Amino acid sequence: MTHSAVNGTSNSLDNEFRFSSDLSLENIRSDQHKFCEERNWLQFHPPRNVLLALVGEVGELSELFQWRGEVTRGLPEFTSQEKVRVGEELSDVLIYLVDLAEQCHIDLPAVVKDKMKKNAVKYPVHRATGRGDKNDDPSAYKQETSDIGDMQREREEGDGSE
Amino acid sequence: MTHSAVNGTSNSLDNEFRFSSDLSLENIRSDQHKFCEERNWLQFHPPRNVLLALVGEVGELSELFQWRGEVTRGLPEFTSQEKVRVGEELSDVLIYLVDLAEQCHIDLPAVVKDKMKKNAVKYPVHRATGRGDKNDDPSAYKQETSDIGDMQREREEGDGSE
Amino acid sequence: MTHSAVNGTSNSLDNEFRFSSDLSLENIRSDQHKFCEERNWLQFHPPRNVLLALVGEVGELSELFQWRGEVTRGLPEFTSQEKVRVGEELSDVLIYLVDLAEQCHIDLPAVVKDKMKKNAVKYPVHRATGRGDKNDDPSAYKQETSDIGDMQREREEGDGSE
Amino acid sequence: MTHSAVNGTSNSLDNEFRFSSDLSLENIRSDQHKFCEERNWLQFHPPRNVLLALVGEVGELSELFQWRGEVTRGLPEFTSQEKVRVGEELSDVLIYLVDLAEQCHIDLPAVVKDKMKKNAVKYPVHRATGRGDKNDDPSAYKQETSDIGDMQREREEGDGSE
Repeated sequence: MTHSAVNGTSNSLDNEFRFSSDLSLENIRSDQHKFCEERNWLQFHPPRNVLLALVGEVGELSELFQWRGEVTRGLPEFTSQEKVRVGEELSDVLIYLVDLAEQCHIDLPAVVKDKMKKNAVKYPVHRATGRGDKNDDPSAYKQETSDIGDMQREREEGDGSE
Repeated sequence: MTHSAVNGTSNSLDNEFRFSSDLSLENIRSDQHKFCEERNWLQFHPPRNVLLALVGEVGELSELFQWRGEVTRGLPEFTSQEKVRVGEELSDVLIYLVDLAEQCHIDLPAVVKDKMKKNAVKYPVHRATGRGDKNDDPSAYKQETSDIGDMQREREEGDGSE
Repeated sequence: MTHSAVNGTSNSLDNEFRFSSDLSLENIRSDQHKFCEERNWLQFHPPRNVLLALVGEVGELSELFQWRGEVTRGLPEFTSQEKVRVGEELSDVLIYLVDLAEQCHIDLPAVVKDKMKKNAVKYPVHRATGRGDKNDDPSAYKQETSDIGDMQREREEGDGSE
Repeated sequence: MTHSAVNGTSNSLDNEFRFSSDLSLENIRSDQHKFCEERNWLQFHPPRNVLLALVGEVGELSELFQWRGEVTRGLPEFTSQEKVRVGEELSDVLIYLVDLAEQCHIDLPAVVKDKMKKNAVKYPVHRATGRGDKNDDPSAYKQETSDIGDMQREREEGDGSE
């Protein structure tokens, strides 16, 4: 199954969406560090300041989605200008996230790789795909949504260790 | 290595904190895409679902900082276990952020690079550093904090009419 | 009783949902103040601590809505247990919000009343209702959604320059 | 102990801060309902729309606190204009929170009262105050901060049931 199945169209190219460059987290970190250092702004970037700035950007991102009801993959309902703004807010969130990792001295790429490995172990493919087979029946879909939702919620809520 | 320069002393080693790998946004995107595809979970990842998951993770991140008062760079006040959790929550935010960019068909690395260039033009070095020179005088510092805060707030708030 | 009028049918009973008590913001404030004071916890409630606790609770609230796609008024898709959790998270957000107002020495009920008056002036009824008349035509609805969305967005975003 | 002890001054009047009116949650709910109904806007207020609007307002609130480092009770560091904006953002969050409770058909005042009773049982006074006695010793304070932080975190994270 591909994105396009989800969207109800049959364009198999959808699966081919990818980012156009290999920009790394370290590229972003070093650019943002230099940007702040040149302006003597690092002094304003202790962890909780940057965290609140991140929350602020997440709020701006949310405002772009707030009155729309459900939104379709690829944002066909958005004007090109609105889509540009989504990209800008995603960028702002990312920049502060990388900045915050630096201020916390967290080696973010290493931790992310490790986290994704843990996720793959925690949610075995066979357990999930079995449920994903019943897509065509709406009631099964609904049940499945709830089940998978439960699985995904375990990730977030589970024993509090995460 | 310390962030002592940032913290008001002159240790030039501060600049040497960096991420240990060149993990790219595209690496994260393709791994997360594959992870979801294998579990037939892409159907649960329309933009607003992923956005709310992102907000949830930002909340979990904030909880780790909430009762602490101001926190020092490098998180010396955190136990090693608490620091691990900060890393995990930062990772969760990042994974959903990259996922959201994919669901929106936003070429995140291209937009980030562009946004950082715009920021550099919008906040010229000379305007900011002039203020940054007066660090040694606490009252000047305070004034400066306010001024720079204003400059940074311009970025977030537009005309500030609300 | 249903919210059917809201949902596009004409059941006028919809307007009858209301809260069952006259609990005031001041009741909540004084109870929460007493709760913290008795435990000697006020010392842990400077403004930014409470703000981050608020963000944490908003995150937990969001997690309850994250994998569901669009959700119907009254939450018929939620189990009774899930609905209880929504109520608890709404409460946690509210308690910290009132707490934060106290820590900031903001007279929240007075400001809220004033804000609602300003909103009524800013968004005149005649301007909005003219658009609301065209509900039956889906394409008009869509147009209207976008228009009203624009009106509502003006409120949030100021000049939209960022 | 009073707020003023926390703030390092001895003004016992601090404890007397209170809201000036008895505005109830039901007052806010009915006013906001009427406001939306008159403009035919209820159709744009399904639960997830209002939730994202709430997240947006929390973001705007956070922006007012982001570059400031720690902030003192009563916001003496804020200009009167900045303090007005804090009040407005707190109001916006509150209005959407009450709106969201209505859209979810959650009897918010009843749930809040119940939640505060549960909190009082969950965090017995004697357990907390024992720790609060050691305020004068900074190292004890620090230890206590961590301990109480743990107690408060239990509230947020505990068994995932909350």
